[in-house]
Amino acid sequence: MSDAKRPVAIRAADAPARVKPSNYPEPFASRMKGREKRPLGDLFGLTNFGVNLTRLVPGGVSALRHAHTKQDEFVYILEGRPTLHTDEGKVLLAPGMCAGFKAGTGNGHCLINETAEDVVYLEIGDRTRGDVGTYPDDDLAAEFVEDQWRFAHKDGSRY
Amino acid sequence: MSDAKRPVAIRAADAPARVKPSNYPEPFASRMKGREKRPLGDLFGLTNFGVNLTRLVPGGVSALRHAHTKQDEFVYILEGRPTLHTDEGKVLLAPGMCAGFKAGTGNGHCLINETAEDVVYLEIGDRTRGDVGTYPDDDLAAEFVEDQWRFAHKDGSRY
Repeated sequence: MSDAKRPVAIRAADAPARVKPSNYPEPFASRMKGREKRPLGDLFGLTNFGVNLTRLVPGGVSALRHAHTKQDEFVYILEGRPTLHTDEGKVLLAPGMCAGFKAGTGNGHCLINETAEDVVYLEIGDRTRGDVGTYPDDDLAAEFVEDQWRFAHKDGSRY
Repeated sequence: MSDAKRPVAIRAADAPARVKPSNYPEPFASRMKGREKRPLGDLFGLTNFGVNLTRLVPGGVSALRHAHTKQDEFVYILEGRPTLHTDEGKVLLAPGMCAGFKAGTGNGHCLINETAEDVVYLEIGDRTRGDVGTYPDDDLAAEFVEDQWRFAHKDGSRY
Protein backbone atom coordinates (compact mmCIF):
# COMPACT_ATOMS: atom_id res chain seq x y z
CA MET A 1 0.00 0.00 0.00
CA SER A 2 1.44 3.40 -0.91
CA ASP A 3 1.95 6.00 1.80
CA ALA A 4 -0.76 8.17 0.24
CA LYS A 5 -3.42 5.51 0.78
CA ARG A 6 -2.60 4.74 4.38
CA PRO A 7 -5.15 5.87 6.95
CA VAL A 8 -4.29 8.33 9.74
CA ALA A 9 -6.38 6.33 12.22
CA ILE A 10 -9.06 3.64 12.03
CA ARG A 11 -11.63 1.86 14.14
CA ALA A 12 -9.83 -1.45 14.75
CA ALA A 13 -13.00 -3.54 14.32
CA ASP A 14 -13.37 -2.09 10.80
CA ALA A 15 -9.98 -3.44 9.67
CA PRO A 16 -10.27 -6.25 7.09
CA ALA A 17 -10.04 -9.77 8.48
CA ARG A 18 -7.17 -11.92 7.19
CA VAL A 19 -8.62 -14.27 4.62
CA LYS A 20 -6.35 -17.24 5.26
CA PRO A 21 -7.26 -18.75 8.65
CA SER A 22 -3.77 -20.08 9.37
CA ASN A 23 -0.30 -20.62 7.93
CA TYR A 24 -0.05 -24.02 9.66
CA PRO A 25 -0.06 -27.20 7.60
CA GLU A 26 -2.94 -29.63 8.16
CA PRO A 27 -4.13 -31.08 10.46
CA PHE A 28 -3.23 -27.99 12.49
CA ALA A 29 -4.72 -25.29 10.24
CA SER A 30 -8.23 -26.67 10.71
CA ARG A 31 -7.91 -26.29 14.46
CA MET A 32 -7.67 -22.50 13.94
CA LYS A 33 -11.13 -22.12 12.39
CA GLY A 34 -12.48 -20.45 15.51
CA ARG A 35 -9.95 -17.64 15.20
CA GLU A 36 -10.27 -14.42 13.17
CA LYS A 37 -7.33 -12.01 12.87
CA ARG A 38 -7.55 -8.39 11.73
CA PRO A 39 -4.01 -7.14 11.02
CA LEU A 40 -3.76 -3.55 12.25
CA GLY A 41 -0.10 -2.58 12.13
CA ASP A 42 0.24 -3.63 8.49
CA LEU A 43 -2.49 -1.13 7.51
CA PHE A 44 -0.21 1.68 8.66
CA GLY A 45 2.86 0.24 6.94
CA LEU A 46 4.53 -0.94 10.14
CA THR A 47 7.21 -3.57 9.55
CA ASN A 48 9.16 -3.94 12.83
CA PHE A 49 6.25 -5.56 14.65
CA GLY A 50 2.75 -6.79 13.91
CA VAL A 51 -0.44 -5.94 15.80
CA ASN A 52 -3.60 -7.98 15.28
CA LEU A 53 -7.11 -7.61 16.64
CA THR A 54 -8.04 -11.26 17.14
CA ARG A 55 -11.42 -12.83 17.94
CA LEU A 56 -11.88 -16.35 19.30
CA VAL A 57 -15.34 -17.83 19.15
CA PRO A 58 -16.27 -20.36 21.87
CA GLY A 59 -13.78 -23.22 21.54
CA GLY A 60 -11.38 -21.11 19.48
CA VAL A 61 -7.63 -21.15 20.08
CA SER A 62 -5.05 -18.41 19.49
CA ALA A 63 -2.43 -20.81 18.10
CA LEU A 64 -0.91 -24.17 18.83
CA ARG A 65 0.91 -23.92 22.15
CA HIS A 66 4.31 -22.57 21.09
CA ALA A 67 7.40 -20.61 22.04
CA HIS A 68 9.72 -18.35 20.01
CA THR A 69 13.48 -18.26 20.16
CA LYS A 70 13.89 -14.59 19.14
CA GLN A 71 10.51 -12.88 18.81
CA ASP A 72 8.76 -11.41 21.85
CA GLU A 73 4.97 -11.54 22.07
CA PHE A 74 2.34 -9.68 24.09
CA VAL A 75 -1.43 -9.94 24.43
CA TYR A 76 -3.99 -7.53 25.93
CA ILE A 77 -7.53 -8.81 26.53
CA LEU A 78 -10.32 -6.50 25.33
CA GLU A 79 -13.40 -8.74 25.67
CA GLY A 80 -14.20 -12.14 27.14
CA ARG A 81 -12.25 -14.59 29.27
CA PRO A 82 -9.65 -16.71 27.51
CA THR A 83 -7.61 -19.29 29.33
CA LEU A 84 -3.84 -18.89 29.04
CA HIS A 85 -2.03 -22.21 28.87
CA THR A 86 1.71 -22.31 29.67
CA ASP A 87 4.15 -24.73 31.29
CA GLU A 88 2.86 -23.39 34.62
CA GLY A 89 -0.68 -24.57 33.85
CA LYS A 90 -3.83 -22.54 33.18
CA VAL A 91 -4.75 -18.97 34.09
CA LEU A 92 -8.17 -17.48 33.34
CA LEU A 93 -7.76 -13.97 31.88
CA ALA A 94 -10.30 -11.14 31.73
CA PRO A 95 -10.67 -7.76 29.99
CA GLY A 96 -7.88 -5.39 31.01
CA MET A 97 -5.43 -8.22 31.67
CA CYS A 98 -2.25 -8.74 29.70
CA ALA A 99 0.58 -11.22 29.35
CA GLY A 100 4.00 -11.13 27.72
CA PHE A 101 5.96 -14.03 26.27
CA LYS A 102 9.67 -13.38 26.26
CA ALA A 103 11.65 -14.98 23.47
CA GLY A 104 14.03 -17.76 24.32
CA THR A 105 12.41 -19.16 27.46
CA GLY A 106 11.04 -22.26 25.71
CA ASN A 107 7.82 -21.91 27.73
CA GLY A 108 5.00 -22.56 25.26
CA HIS A 109 1.82 -20.49 25.40
CA CYS A 110 -1.60 -20.27 23.80
CA LEU A 111 -5.02 -18.83 24.59
CA ILE A 112 -8.10 -21.07 24.47
CA ASN A 113 -11.65 -19.75 24.67
CA GLU A 114 -13.22 -22.26 27.04
CA THR A 115 -16.30 -20.07 27.59
CA ALA A 116 -19.61 -19.58 25.75
CA GLU A 117 -18.81 -15.93 24.85
CA ASP A 118 -16.44 -14.53 22.24
CA VAL A 119 -12.97 -13.40 23.25
CA VAL A 120 -11.29 -10.37 21.63
CA TYR A 121 -7.69 -9.36 22.24
CA LEU A 122 -4.77 -7.44 20.80
CA GLU A 123 -1.66 -9.47 19.99
CA ILE A 124 1.72 -7.95 19.28
CA GLY A 125 4.81 -9.73 18.01
CA ASP A 126 8.04 -8.43 16.55
CA ARG A 127 9.61 -9.72 13.35
CA THR A 128 13.17 -10.45 14.41
CA ARG A 129 14.87 -12.62 11.79
CA GLY A 130 16.20 -16.08 12.49
CA ASP A 131 13.31 -16.98 14.77
CA VAL A 132 12.36 -20.60 15.43
CA GLY A 133 8.97 -21.70 16.74
CA THR A 134 8.74 -24.73 19.03
CA TYR A 135 5.56 -26.68 19.76
CA PRO A 136 5.71 -28.77 22.94
CA ASP A 137 2.37 -30.54 22.38
CA ASP A 138 2.44 -31.13 18.60
CA ASP A 139 4.66 -32.70 15.93
CA LEU A 140 5.58 -29.37 14.38
CA ALA A 141 8.67 -27.19 14.02
CA ALA A 142 8.80 -23.74 12.40
CA GLU A 143 11.44 -21.40 11.05
CA PHE A 144 10.88 -17.73 10.18
CA VAL A 145 12.66 -17.35 6.83
CA GLU A 146 12.34 -14.38 4.49
CA ASP A 147 9.48 -13.01 6.58
CA GLN A 148 7.47 -16.22 6.24
CA TRP A 149 6.96 -19.28 8.45
CA ARG A 150 8.23 -22.61 7.11
CA PHE A 151 6.88 -25.69 8.84
CA ALA A 152 8.19 -29.23 9.19
CA HIS A 153 7.76 -32.31 11.35
CA LYS A 154 9.99 -32.42 14.42
CA ASP A 155 12.23 -34.94 12.64
CA GLY A 156 12.78 -32.35 9.89
CA SER A 157 10.61 -34.05 7.24
CA ARG A 158 8.22 -31.89 5.28
CA TYR A 159 4.47 -31.67 5.60
CA MET B 1 13.89 -9.14 37.34
CA SER B 2 14.69 -12.85 37.33
CA ASP B 3 12.57 -15.22 35.29
CA ALA B 4 11.25 -16.82 38.47
CA LYS B 5 9.73 -13.55 39.66
CA ARG B 6 8.01 -12.64 36.42
CA PRO B 7 4.22 -12.85 36.43
CA VAL B 8 2.30 -15.14 34.07
CA ALA B 9 -0.35 -12.46 33.53
CA ILE B 10 -1.42 -9.24 35.25
CA ARG B 11 -4.21 -6.70 35.30
CA ALA B 12 -2.60 -3.89 33.32
CA ALA B 13 -3.99 -1.16 35.58
CA ASP B 14 -2.16 -2.80 38.52
CA ALA B 15 1.26 -2.40 36.87
CA PRO B 16 3.49 0.12 38.66
CA ALA B 17 3.56 3.61 37.14
CA ARG B 18 6.91 4.88 35.90
CA VAL B 19 8.24 7.25 38.53
CA LYS B 20 10.07 9.65 36.21
CA PRO B 21 7.48 11.64 34.24
CA SER B 22 9.71 12.17 31.20
CA ASN B 23 13.21 11.73 29.81
CA TYR B 24 13.00 15.10 28.04
CA PRO B 25 15.17 17.99 29.23
CA GLU B 26 13.40 21.07 30.56
CA PRO B 27 11.36 22.99 29.57
CA PHE B 28 9.82 19.97 27.80
CA ALA B 29 9.70 17.50 30.71
CA SER B 30 7.29 19.72 32.65
CA ARG B 31 4.83 19.65 29.77
CA MET B 32 4.45 15.89 30.36
CA LYS B 33 3.07 16.19 33.89
CA GLY B 34 -0.41 15.19 32.75
CA ARG B 35 0.86 11.84 31.48
CA GLU B 36 1.27 8.61 33.47
CA LYS B 37 2.92 5.56 31.91
CA ARG B 38 2.68 1.99 33.22
CA PRO B 39 5.31 -0.13 31.44
CA LEU B 40 3.78 -3.54 30.73
CA GLY B 41 6.15 -5.36 28.40
CA ASP B 42 9.12 -4.79 30.70
CA LEU B 43 7.33 -6.66 33.51
CA PHE B 44 7.43 -9.80 31.39
CA GLY B 45 11.08 -9.32 30.40
CA LEU B 46 10.30 -8.26 26.82
CA THR B 47 13.16 -6.41 25.14
CA ASN B 48 12.34 -6.20 21.41
CA PHE B 49 9.47 -3.77 21.93
CA GLY B 50 7.87 -1.82 24.75
CA VAL B 51 4.18 -1.69 25.66
CA ASN B 52 2.87 0.99 28.01
CA LEU B 53 -0.58 1.61 29.47
CA THR B 54 -0.68 5.41 29.40
CA ARG B 55 -3.17 7.80 30.97
CA LEU B 56 -3.57 11.46 29.98
CA VAL B 57 -5.49 13.69 32.34
CA PRO B 58 -7.40 16.63 30.75
CA GLY B 59 -4.77 18.77 29.01
CA GLY B 60 -2.21 15.97 29.06
CA VAL B 61 -0.06 15.15 26.05
CA SER B 62 1.47 11.83 24.96
CA ALA B 63 4.78 13.38 23.91
CA LEU B 64 6.13 16.34 22.01
CA ARG B 65 5.03 15.98 18.40
CA HIS B 66 7.77 13.77 16.97
CA ALA B 67 8.78 11.22 14.34
CA HIS B 68 11.22 8.29 14.44
CA THR B 69 13.68 7.32 11.75
CA LYS B 70 13.79 3.58 12.59
CA GLN B 71 11.28 2.70 15.30
CA ASP B 72 7.64 1.99 14.46
CA GLU B 73 4.92 3.04 16.89
CA PHE B 74 1.28 2.07 17.41
CA VAL B 75 -1.48 3.25 19.74
CA TYR B 76 -4.84 1.69 20.64
CA ILE B 77 -7.37 3.83 22.53
CA LEU B 78 -9.02 2.15 25.53
CA GLU B 79 -10.82 5.08 27.18
CA GLY B 80 -11.57 8.70 26.35
CA ARG B 81 -11.12 10.80 23.23
CA PRO B 82 -7.61 12.06 22.52
CA THR B 83 -6.84 14.27 19.53
CA LEU B 84 -4.15 12.93 17.21
CA HIS B 85 -1.98 15.70 15.75
CA THR B 86 0.05 14.97 12.60
CA ASP B 87 1.19 16.88 9.52
CA GLU B 88 -2.32 16.22 8.15
CA GLY B 89 -3.92 18.12 11.02
CA LYS B 90 -6.10 16.87 13.86
CA VAL B 91 -8.23 13.72 14.19
CA LEU B 92 -10.41 13.01 17.21
CA LEU B 93 -9.97 9.40 18.33
CA ALA B 94 -12.29 7.25 20.46
CA PRO B 95 -12.15 3.90 22.29
CA GLY B 96 -11.51 1.05 19.87
CA MET B 97 -9.60 3.27 17.45
CA CYS B 98 -5.94 2.80 16.63
CA ALA B 99 -3.15 4.49 14.70
CA GLY B 100 0.28 3.43 13.56
CA PHE B 101 3.31 5.61 12.95
CA LYS B 102 5.72 4.09 10.49
CA ALA B 103 9.37 4.91 10.97
CA GLY B 104 11.08 7.11 8.44
CA THR B 105 8.14 9.17 7.16
CA GLY B 106 9.14 12.31 9.05
CA ASN B 107 5.46 12.93 9.85
CA GLY B 108 5.39 14.01 13.49
CA HIS B 109 2.62 12.78 15.77
CA CYS B 110 1.31 13.24 19.31
CA LEU B 111 -1.92 12.74 21.22
CA ILE B 112 -3.41 15.62 23.20
CA ASN B 113 -6.29 15.22 25.62
CA GLU B 114 -8.39 18.25 24.76
CA THR B 115 -11.42 16.92 26.68
CA ALA B 116 -12.54 17.05 30.33
CA GLU B 117 -12.25 13.25 30.79
CA ASP B 118 -9.16 11.08 31.18
CA VAL B 119 -7.74 9.25 28.17
CA VAL B 120 -6.21 5.76 28.49
CA TYR B 121 -4.39 3.99 25.68
CA LEU B 122 -1.87 1.29 24.89
CA GLU B 123 1.32 2.43 23.14
CA ILE B 124 3.75 0.07 21.48
CA GLY B 125 7.18 0.94 20.11
CA ASP B 126 10.08 -1.24 19.06
CA ARG B 127 13.66 -0.67 20.15
CA THR B 128 15.55 -0.72 16.88
CA ARG B 129 19.02 0.71 17.39
CA GLY B 130 20.29 3.82 15.62
CA ASP B 131 16.95 5.61 15.88
CA VAL B 132 16.73 9.39 15.71
CA GLY B 133 13.77 11.39 16.99
CA THR B 134 12.77 14.59 15.20
CA TYR B 135 10.52 17.31 16.66
CA PRO B 136 8.95 19.61 14.06
CA ASP B 137 7.47 22.06 16.59
CA ASP B 138 10.26 22.25 19.20
CA ASP B 139 13.98 22.97 19.45
CA LEU B 140 14.90 19.39 20.25
CA ALA B 141 16.74 16.51 18.60
CA ALA B 142 17.11 12.99 20.02
CA GLU B 143 19.28 9.96 19.40
CA PHE B 144 18.62 6.46 20.80
CA VAL B 145 22.07 5.36 22.00
CA GLU B 146 22.74 2.32 24.20
CA ASP B 147 19.01 1.89 24.79
CA GLN B 148 18.63 5.45 26.11
CA TRP B 149 17.50 8.73 24.56
CA ARG B 150 20.08 11.51 24.33
CA PHE B 151 18.70 14.98 23.70
CA ALA B 152 20.22 18.12 22.20
CA HIS B 153 19.17 21.42 20.63
CA LYS B 154 18.63 21.31 16.90
CA ASP B 155 22.00 23.03 16.39
CA GLY B 156 23.63 20.12 18.26
CA SER B 157 24.36 22.02 21.46
CA ARG B 158 23.55 20.30 24.74
CA TYR B 159 20.71 21.03 27.11
